[in-house]
This record gives sequence, structure tokens and C-alpha cells, in this order.
Amino acid sequence: MIYFLDLFGTAVFAIAGALAGGRKRMDLFGIVVVALATALGGGTIRDAVLGEGRVFWVADYTYVIVGSVAALVTFITVRFVLLPGSLMLLADAFGLAVFTVIGAHRSLAAGTGAFVAMIMGMTTGVAGGMVRDILCGEIPLVLRKEVYAVASLIGGGLYAATAALGASDPVAMTIAVLVTLGVRVAAIHWGLSLPVFAQPGREDRGS
Amino acid sequence: MIYFLDLFGTAVFAIAGALAGGRKRMDLFGIVVVALATALGGGTIRDAVLGEGRVFWVADYTYVIVGSVAALVTFITVRFVLLPGSLMLLADAFGLAVFTVIGAHRSLAAGTGAFVAMIMGMTTGVAGGMVRDILCGEIPLVLRKEVYAVASLIGGGLYAATAALGASDPVAMTIAVLVTLGVRVAAIHWGLSLPVFAQPGREDRGS
Amino acid sequence: MIYFLDLFGTAVFAIAGALAGGRKRMDLFGIVVVALATALGGGTIRDAVLGEGRVFWVADYTYVIVGSVAALVTFITVRFVLLPGSLMLLADAFGLAVFTVIGAHRSLAAGTGAFVAMIMGMTTGVAGGMVRDILCGEIPLVLRKEVYAVASLIGGGLYAATAALGASDPVAMTIAVLVTLGVRVAAIHWGLSLPVFAQPGREDRGS
Repeated sequence: MIYFLDLFGTAVFAIAGALAGGRKRMDLFGIVVVALATALGGGTIRDAVLGEGRVFWVADYTYVIVGSVAALVTFITVRFVLLPGSLMLLADAFGLAVFTVIGAHRSLAAGTGAFVAMIMGMTTGVAGGMVRDILCGEIPLVLRKEVYAVASLIGGGLYAATAALGASDPVAMTIAVLVTLGVRVAAIHWGLSLPVFAQPGREDRGS
Repeated sequence: MIYFLDLFGTAVFAIAGALAGGRKRMDLFGIVVVALATALGGGTIRDAVLGEGRVFWVADYTYVIVGSVAALVTFITVRFVLLPGSLMLLADAFGLAVFTVIGAHRSLAAGTGAFVAMIMGMTTGVAGGMVRDILCGEIPLVLRKEVYAVASLIGGGLYAATAALGASDPVAMTIAVLVTLGVRVAAIHWGLSLPVFAQPGREDRGS
Repeated sequence: MIYFLDLFGTAVFAIAGALAGGRKRMDLFGIVVVALATALGGGTIRDAVLGEGRVFWVADYTYVIVGSVAALVTFITVRFVLLPGSLMLLADAFGLAVFTVIGAHRSLAAGTGAFVAMIMGMTTGVAGGMVRDILCGEIPLVLRKEVYAVASLIGGGLYAATAALGASDPVAMTIAVLVTLGVRVAAIHWGLSLPVFAQPGREDRGS
């Protein structure tokens, strides 16, 4: 069950990556790479940091195939179909919730404490989008956007806490997915955002 | 034999990296770092993803020395010598072919299937150039360029396929290197490219 | 002792990261992420490349907490307190020196030779700042700045050399930290820099 949700999240993130690559006029290969980086990047960094041997998509390449197919379908259909923005936002929030909980779960399974599990959940949920933005030559959107990573932190922390309290995995996962989703949807709906740094600064370094 | 070709590819990629860093007016250290990132980046990501313990250039630092020397020589001679662009393109295509086949070979040796080996071949061949472009503040060229990664995918797939059919390694490697090289040279010669995303999109996010 | 210096370096690098993120008008979460990437990025890449299992801050999350708190305090106090630039430069030089020596030490402890230890020291010292600049959409400053990484290379090489000559760890570390700090401070004071690539080049690729 969680496996199918994971693949669904992979497809959603791949579509978002393909659209971002398309906006930068990348070619078909670029689109697929950005889509895969978006969909698999977070979990890849998580697994490399946890040092648990090979990364998840090397062990099971269904993820690569689902991400590639989602990118190809996006590439082909983007001329004819325009997904409503609100549907994409909702699907993305759902992907964020699922990736967060799976990341926290893998971290606990690797023997880390709850605090690291919370960070690994967030890494799984948001790092793919950060890699996508870097490949597209942008400052990662998540670093200055409304409550996104915070929803992930809350969900991952909740999962680790309920698991520590002895809740069965299906229960802890369901609760955490729903809460992450709820926080994210509330943030979108009411335009919540975090305070911004108020430095009387200049933005003049570098190129 | 393949080891010397590998070192040759390392030198060629390091030269390309040094030239890219020079174009951005980096200092001597920056040039060497960009050169090494270009030459070693793909294999480093491959080894980290495969989770096979220490990365190849930690085990054998000849690669670091060859890449550093190539960058230094480029730095010193660039005032006096101008390599013809077509020679650099050909050497780069050769480096791509060798790195692709070595990456696919290492992946199979680590026990992955043919599909993952094809992806690891491509990662070894193209990820270094992507890191180079990111360090230079550019959108990775390979994401919107003519057939480059596709040549790598074809070569890596061919190697995995011939190896699976029982061909001896020297035979499988030679065939795959020559085919990758051929596809890439053909793409340069006839200006082949992949279709580009046709989204009536804007490019207005971020900075 | 070295552990407390390491945490001090973590805090200094986190402050530098938070200020860089603030200059880009990131929100609170972005600030914390950039701070942590600056403070933990170098050691993370080192550990992933050395392939020694889980990364240091997964094993001991004190680093994450120190970095996060430093970022939060920076975020809150930046309106009221302005650290003098020269103090920040000195603290940063000290962080560079400590990270370099710890990185070289970890590398030798993982069984690598002195040359790789020197590179790992530099990676630990400078890669975090490079990740920070990439997240901020800049070409990494260290690639075109005055003697910074070179101070790190000298310090790491000195540590590896004195350790190989049989010096006890506290002695070798103290010498290497002081020399790195001295080279960096001298470079700041006299404005030393490395030669720049003199290519009659254009800067016209990509975006």
C-alpha cells in the first residue's frame, strides 16, 4: 500500500520536474533527468547520508521507470492537456506527505533516533525539489516559499513520536501523512508563510 | 589498457573543466577544483549511489593527480596554445565513451541489473559535466544540448546487453566504446538534437 | 577539546550561512537550511566519499542542533547586533582551520594515505561554503577568491606530514590549526590572491 503511494509520489514529483525543465527549454533528455532528479533526489541523498549501502532505486528500479514514464507522458501531452494548477498543488502536497513519512520510516529502520528521522523525512520530501531548482539555475523555491518544509518537519516528527509511543506502523503512517497534507493544504489555502530575514542587506556578491 | 583510457578521459574532462572555469575568471584553485569536479564527479556520484564503500579516487589517487596536472598545464599553456575546437570535441566524445563503458562495467560488477548499469554508465559519463556547469553558475549544457547523454545511454545499454549475452569483457567494451563514439560524432557532424518541450510557458520564477 | 572547537566551527559556519541566506531574502526555514548546508556540507561530502557508513551528524546530532541554534540566533539578532566584519573573517578563518584538520584526521583514521587526507581536509573546510553559494544561486566564492582553499591545503598537508612523522595527535593538530589560521589571516591582511586564468575568452554559454 505505502509502496503504491510512494510510486504515486514519484510520478507527481517527476511531472513537476518535467514541467520545470520544460520552462527552461530543455530537450527531451534534460526533461527526463530533471524529472528523475526531482523524484529520486531526496531519497538518494537520504540513503547516501544514512550509509546503508546502495540507494533505493538501484535496489528496485521501478522508481526509475515510473519517473521516466511520467516525464515522457508529460512531455508528450503538455501541448494538449493542461492540468489545473490547484490539482498539481494538491498532488504535490500528497507526494510531500508520503515521501516525508517514508523517509522518516527508513531512518528509524536504519537505527537512528527520532530527531535524525525527522530531518531525514524532510530531506526525502524536499531535497529533490531543491536539486530540480539548482539544475534549472534557480535559487531553490523551498528556501523562500510559504510553509512547505515545515509541514514536512511536523509530519516527520509526528511519525517518529507516534512510532516511539508504540503505535503500529500503518496507524503512525496514516496519521503523519494526513497531518502533513493538512498543514500543507492549510498553508496554501491561507497563504501562510514564515518570517523573512530583515537585514538591511545588499544582494551584490558574485555574478 | 582500459585503465589508461580511463586516465586519458580524466585528463580530457579536466581540460574541459579548466577551460570552463577560466571563462568565469576563476583563480588557479578554482580552475583545479572545477577540473577535478568535471573529471571525477560522475564516478563519485556513481560510487556513492552504488554504496560500494570508498569512492574510486580515494582508493587510487592517480586520478586526482592526472586531473590536477591536466588543469595546471591548461592554466599555463592557454595563453600560448589554442587547441582546435574540433579536436577537443573529438577527445571529449572519446572520454564520454570510455567513462560510460567503465561506469556500466562497475555497476554490473557491483551486482546490479542491466538497466541500472545503463543509468550508471550515463551518470559516470555526464554527471561530471553537470557539476561543472553548476559550479560555473550555468544550467547544465547537457540538459539542452544535442545528442550527448543519449549516445551514453546507447553505449551503456549495448555494453550491458553484450555482457549479458556472454561476450568477453574486452570485446563488449570495445564495441560499446566505438558505438558511443560513433553516435556522438554523428550527432556533432549532422547537428542531431532531441525535440524540445513545447510549452507556451514563461521563465519567470526566482531570481 | 577538538570536539568543542569543531562545534565552534559549526556555529561560525552556520552564522555565515544564515547571513548569506538572509541576503537572498530567504524565509526562516531557508536560513536554517543554508546554515546547516554551510556548516555540515563539507563533512557530509567527506563521509560519503570515504564510504565509512553513516555521516557524522547522523551519528551525533549535536552538530545539527548547534547549527540550527546558531542560525536561529542570527535570524533573531541580526536586526539589533551587527558583528564587525573583521571579527567574522577571523572566526571564519578559525572554523576553516579546525574543519581542515578534523577532515584530514578522519581521512587518515579511515585508512587513506596522506595525499587523500589533504584533499579530504580541504573538502571538509571549503565544500560547505561552496554548497551555500550554489543554494544562493552564486558561483562559489572560494573558486575566485583570495587564498582560502590554499590555506586549507597547506594545513591539511602539514597535519598529514607531521602525523606520518610520528607526532602525537594533539601536537600535530595544534600546529596544523595554527598554520592554517596564520596563512589565511596573512592572506586577508595583505590581500594575497592566486593568479587568474588569462584566456581571451567569452562568457557567453548557457542562460
